[in-house]
Order: sequence, then structure tokens, then C-alpha cells
Amino acid sequence: MPKISNKGQQMPESPIRKLVPYAEIAKKKGVKVYHLNIGQPDIKTPEVALQAVKNAAIEVLEYSHSAGFESYRTKLAASYRSYGLPVETQDIIITTGGSEALLFAIGSTMDAGDEIIIPEPFYANYNGFATASGVKVVPVISTLEEGFALPPIAAFEQLITPKTKAILICNPGNPTGYLYSQEEIQQLAAIVKKHDLFLIADEVYREFIYDADVQHHSVLNVPGIEENAIMIDSVSKRYSMCGARIGCLVSKNKDVMATAMKFAQARLSPPTYAQIASEAALDTPQSYFEDVIAEYKGRRDLLVEGLQNIPGVKVAVPKGAFYCIAQLPVTNADEFAQWLLESYDFHGETVMVAPAAGFYSTPGVGLNEVRIAYVLKKEDLQRAIAILEAALKTYNAR
Amino acid sequence: MPKISNKGQQMPESPIRKLVPYAEIAKKKGVKVYHLNIGQPDIKTPEVALQAVKNAAIEVLEYSHSAGFESYRTKLAASYRSYGLPVETQDIIITTGGSEALLFAIGSTMDAGDEIIIPEPFYANYNGFATASGVKVVPVISTLEEGFALPPIAAFEQLITPKTKAILICNPGNPTGYLYSQEEIQQLAAIVKKHDLFLIADEVYREFIYDADVQHHSVLNVPGIEENAIMIDSVSKRYSMCGARIGCLVSKNKDVMATAMKFAQARLSPPTYAQIASEAALDTPQSYFEDVIAEYKGRRDLLVEGLQNIPGVKVAVPKGAFYCIAQLPVTNADEFAQWLLESYDFHGETVMVAPAAGFYSTPGVGLNEVRIAYVLKKEDLQRAIAILEAALKTYNAR
Ligand SMILES: Cc1ncc(COP(=O)(O)O)c(C=O)c1O
Ligand SMILES: Cc1ncc(COP(=O)(O)O)c(C=O)c1O
Repeated sequence: MPKISNKGQQMPESPIRKLVPYAEIAKKKGVKVYHLNIGQPDIKTPEVALQAVKNAAIEVLEYSHSAGFESYRTKLAASYRSYGLPVETQDIIITTGGSEALLFAIGSTMDAGDEIIIPEPFYANYNGFATASGVKVVPVISTLEEGFALPPIAAFEQLITPKTKAILICNPGNPTGYLYSQEEIQQLAAIVKKHDLFLIADEVYREFIYDADVQHHSVLNVPGIEENAIMIDSVSKRYSMCGARIGCLVSKNKDVMATAMKFAQARLSPPTYAQIASEAALDTPQSYFEDVIAEYKGRRDLLVEGLQNIPGVKVAVPKGAFYCIAQLPVTNADEFAQWLLESYDFHGETVMVAPAAGFYSTPGVGLNEVRIAYVLKKEDLQRAIAILEAALKTYNAR
Repeated sequence: MPKISNKGQQMPESPIRKLVPYAEIAKKKGVKVYHLNIGQPDIKTPEVALQAVKNAAIEVLEYSHSAGFESYRTKLAASYRSYGLPVETQDIIITTGGSEALLFAIGSTMDAGDEIIIPEPFYANYNGFATASGVKVVPVISTLEEGFALPPIAAFEQLITPKTKAILICNPGNPTGYLYSQEEIQQLAAIVKKHDLFLIADEVYREFIYDADVQHHSVLNVPGIEENAIMIDSVSKRYSMCGARIGCLVSKNKDVMATAMKFAQARLSPPTYAQIASEAALDTPQSYFEDVIAEYKGRRDLLVEGLQNIPGVKVAVPKGAFYCIAQLPVTNADEFAQWLLESYDFHGETVMVAPAAGFYSTPGVGLNEVRIAYVLKKEDLQRAIAILEAALKTYNAR
């Protein structure tokens, strides 16, 4: 029997999805499961996007340009410029989700054996994309105690080797909710400039920022690193259109764009219906975003307060995105998460959380942490917190 | 300035698309260009697929299961069984086009430095997918003189090394139109079995077969190679839905499926709208296919006859798909193709062809060949052949 690849064996399982069978068993037993484990928002997709697809007069559903509709790229570039990012049509390649943009960015800048430095905890699929490309992830630990702030520059410099090709950040962060300050972005810019590295910034949660006194700083806005900066974006979260599968890769570096374009041509084109929806979504009224942000801010405040009131739970207050990392009074959050689904219910209900160890690549770190996504409406979130509190009591009294 | 990857440099440019700027110049001059160069059919997408998308009641456009809708996989498996392929729901992973299925198949079975044997000329993007994965393509030459039949088994065995992991075939073939006989498929089965290799069969043109006396033989139907066989499929050509971006990977090998699933989870899910269209497309009435096949058969006959009547042109009669390779009375088809767009017109019209060298990976082979796609309606095809004939006369009289 022929054997699968080593890289296939090394591909990580999704830490978010591996508890799914237990959740299914719980549901079959009639237990209601509150999903705090996934980044699938419950927010409605803008009508303007859904209607555009309904109204599209298609007779032959054709391949599009490999870089995506020119009309969409042009309108998207204008939209970036409208909030201060210097982006032109030719700086954009439309991809099948931010996921594909990450794959193209890694493939265009790194060979098998090369290294990429990523502050951890990080979006678990970075591991998958790196492994798929034979690239080694070199983590630099950020801690709950420091609120997941950027580790000191010295910590990065210690890790740079001749094989280091890029630093990858997620801003604001999944799973931490951390938002980098302008100073931190400038520190990163200085390192990549000094060591001739790429700075790949996953900014798919850019709009999800909840405090009036902070703002988002894009890597595209730092003078002097135009050749180093690659930005990853997506419509998935912005418009609650995860199923569209549209994202983009943005860079001023012409070699990067020409190379990413070859990857894009090999897979022919991004999905046509989804591009129609995404182009139309650019006309979403501002009030939609105001409502969404207000809703998430309310959820965040409720969640953080609720968690802080549970004895033994520590949480780093997220400034953006819709996740937070919580430290629980357990030794193994993996076992606890499984127990919640397999052996526990509170009046017929339980919660599903994502054990945080899967978001670290250093073994043994984050074992008592979970990631909680606040993508449920407030009543449900409140209920889920109450269940978690009761569950922790029962679990620790076993 | 940071440097792009070696693999990014090695990624091939699309041989089909590199003449595009010349076509654009021709069009700007007001010259009409007949596109014989691309595999984008002009056939209408089935109404049932388009209507399903229009009628979908979506409020939140969510991620789907990473393997695709379960309902779609189940219905698709039943459809395979209805024409004799032993496929169950769990043997299928829905992908973003056949393109992504190819990437998953290569990633799941091969590491950087491994080798894959492919009869050439082959679909040019196989080179791209292999390069993206650091895999070496080892070509085995099939020739126009032999009608692009399977090269002798000895030719394969000579190329097998400890690094060989798979043989990849396209059946029926793009760019050759060749359809493998049952005997040829059995010969391939015997080699992969003997040498413990995977047999990856790209069967995206399965329905496009034009002669009553031949039929398609899938690798899924050969007893004894269940663990070796991986089938690649797509809705792109079958339903003229190239822009949907839906395909699938099918295998009975559980390790392959579990591994491909990890690649699928990393990119989250295939596009939702496109899955709705593809699931509905399974209800396309049989008459649609009968009309389409009759239309293509007419085009093929017209094209082959037309080409055979041009002095100095040789063509291998395609039995399937909608391409053929033609040998032209020129020494460099690349230069000729460019000249057609840049310097030629016949009463204000010209043609665009794909130089065949890009479909070979052996340098210097196929230099006087072009690939012609018969995806235009008959009047246009007729006109295009006349232009090609006149152009060859002018070109060779320069
Ligand atoms: C940080 C981050 N980046 C990228 C993605 C990929 O999203 P998509 O491929 O849907 O654009 C996600 C999805 O959850 C994410 O959380
Ligand atoms: C032989 C072959 N395989 C695979 C593909 C990929 O098609 P898609 O990704 O649209 O399914 C094509 C497209 O032209 C093809 O010709």
C-alpha cells in the first residue's frame, strides 16, 4: 500500500474541530451545546451582497481573471484609500479566502526549510499553511500576564537565523484579541528592515475594534517598508460572509505580486458568485458596521466581566477581533473541554470551548487556557458563562 | 529588499495566458480575436444550478463543513454509483475546483524532492501544482504520431526511482483529447501496484466523449488498486460552471482521505454559493448532456476536417475533452502565435492559439505544435480555421 507524505502526517489537526465528535454525541443525547469554540459569526450578511447574487444575470458561469474581477479590485483599492491605506488596483490579488492569500504569501516568499517567526498564541491554521509549504514556524511567546503585547524586539532578534524569511502577525489577533500599538508596528518595521525580512500582517479583523481611544495600524501605512509588507485581508468576518471564500493579498512589492500571480494563475480564478457578493458588499451602509461593532462591544464587555467574576479565571481583555484567551483553574484544558461535552450538562446544556494549546506551537504552553469566541448573542453568552462557572465547580469537586 | 522564494521563481507562467497582452493590443487596434486558446466553454450553465443560487434563502453566508455539504457529497456519491463507480459519501472531499483537489492529492502523497511521472504533453498547471509543492515532474513522452497513446510500460519503468510516489494521468486528456483504453488503464494499474505508487487520475472531462465505439474507464473501477487510486473531478466543464470553483477528490484509501482532510480543514471550507449550484446541477436533465455532446462532436469533426485540409498541418484526432494538438508548418509556434496577434489580421480578424511547448516539460519538444480548444460555435470555428490557413500562407511567405 503506498504511503502518504511526511508533510501530510505532520499537518496539524484543527484544534477547534477535533472536539466535534464529542459535541455530536452530546447533541444526540439531547444536550444543548453553546459554541464558544468557533469564529463563525451569527451576524447577518449585508442585504446588498445577498441581493447582488440573486440579481446577477449569469448565463455562463465563467472563470474570472486569475487576480479577480478588475472592477472589484479597483473598487476595493478605492475603499482602502478611503480609510487611508495607499492601495492601487495592481497591488491586489483576490484570493479564495484569506486562507489562500496566506498560502500564496508563504509560497511566494519561502522555500521548504525556511523559517517564519510568529508571536504565539496564533491562529492555528498558520501551522497548517506553513507545514503544507514545508516551512518551519518559529514561535516567540507572548503572555497572558502581559496582555499578549508584542514580545520585546530582543526576543525576535534572538530567533533570526539565515533561514528566517518573514515575521507574521495577526492584528487584531485571533486568538488573543490583542491590537498592536503604532509603536509596536514601528518596532516590527525596524526589525524586518534591518534583517531584510517580509512582514506579513493578517488584518482580517481590522474593523473589529471596541474602544474609542485605540485605532488600527496597518503595515501598509508604515513608510520605508513598502517592499517588506504583505497584507492579508478577507470578507469573511467583515461582512459575516465566511462561506463566500473571498480574501486578498495586498503588497507594493512588484516581485511578490508577480510571483503570487503565478500561484493564482495555476488555480485559475477565485469563485465568481462570491466575487459578485464581495464587490457589492463594498456598498454596505456605514450603519451596518456601527451596529455590528456596538453589538460585539456589548458582547465583549459582558464576556470579560462574566469571566472575571468566575473564581480562578484570568482573562486578557481583548481590544479587537472577537476572541479572548482565558486561563482556567484546571491543569488540562483539553481534558476539561472534552469532559464538558462528554460527561457534563447543566440543566440539559453545556458549552464547547477551544483548548488553547492548539494555538501555541511550543509544546506544553497554554495547557490551562482556552479560547472563547464571542459570536453568540448576549443572552446565550450570559447563559454560557453561567454554565462554565457551574461546570468548573463540579469539575474541580470531582 | 527581501527576496522571493526559489520555488516562486520556478513557478511556470501560464502558457495559455502569456500571450494575453498581445491579444489586448490586437483588440485595441479593433482586430477581432477568435479564442482557440482557452478551455472556457461558451455552453450555457444548466438553469437548475443558476436558479438554485437565486432561490437560496441565505441570511448568514456561513462556512460549510470542510469536506463540503454532507447533502452534496451524498448526492454526488449516488450519482457516481448510477454510472457504475463504487463511491460512498466518505470517499469524497469537495474542493475549490479540481485545481485544489490536485493540490491536496499532491500534498497528501508527496514531499519536497519526490517525483511524479506524467505522460506529456499534459495540462500545464500540473507543473505549477508540482512546483508549489516542491515536487519534481518526470515526463514520459507521448507523441502525435502515436495519437498520444499511453507510452509503453517499459518507458514508465525506466523512470521509476525510490523517489517516485505517483503517476498522474488526465483521461480524457487536456491538451491531447486522448482517451485511454481499458487495457491501458490496466497496464497503469499493474505498474502502480507493482511499485507501490499512487495513480492519480484527472477525470474532469469524463463525459466529453464523442464516438459510440469507445467509453471512459475510471481508475476507480479497477479491482485491486483501491488503495492506489485517487480520482480528481470538477463541475467546471461538465456543467459549464468554471466560475463556481467546485471539484472533488475521491479515494477509497482512508489514510489519503484523512490526510487530505487536514489540508481541507486548514483552508476552512469550499465556497458555499458554488456548492449550492453544484448540488442542484446534479439534477440537470440528461437532454442537456446529449445536446452538449452532440454540439462538441460537431465542432470536433468540423475542426479536425478543417485542420487536415490545411497544407502542412497534422492533427491527432481527439476522442474526448475539447482540445487537440496540431502540428503546424512553422519552426516556432510561440513566435507564430505572437505574430498572429501582433502583426496579422485577415479582414480585421485573427486567432489566438496556445503554443504547445508549455504543455511539455521536456525542453525543445512540441515547438511546432499548438493546442486548439474547440469551445466556439461552429460558424466561429469555421471562420477561425480559414483565418489560420490564410495566416500560415502569409507567415511562410514572409
Ligand atoms: C486570523 C485569521 N486569519 C485568516 C482567517 C481565514 O479566513 P478566510 O479564509 O475565511 O478568509 C481566519 C479565519 O478564522 C482568521 O481567524
Ligand atoms: C485537465 C484539467 N484538470 C483540471 C482542471 C482544473 O479545473 P477546475 O479547477 O476549474 O476544476 C482543468 C481546467 O482547465 C483541466 O483542463
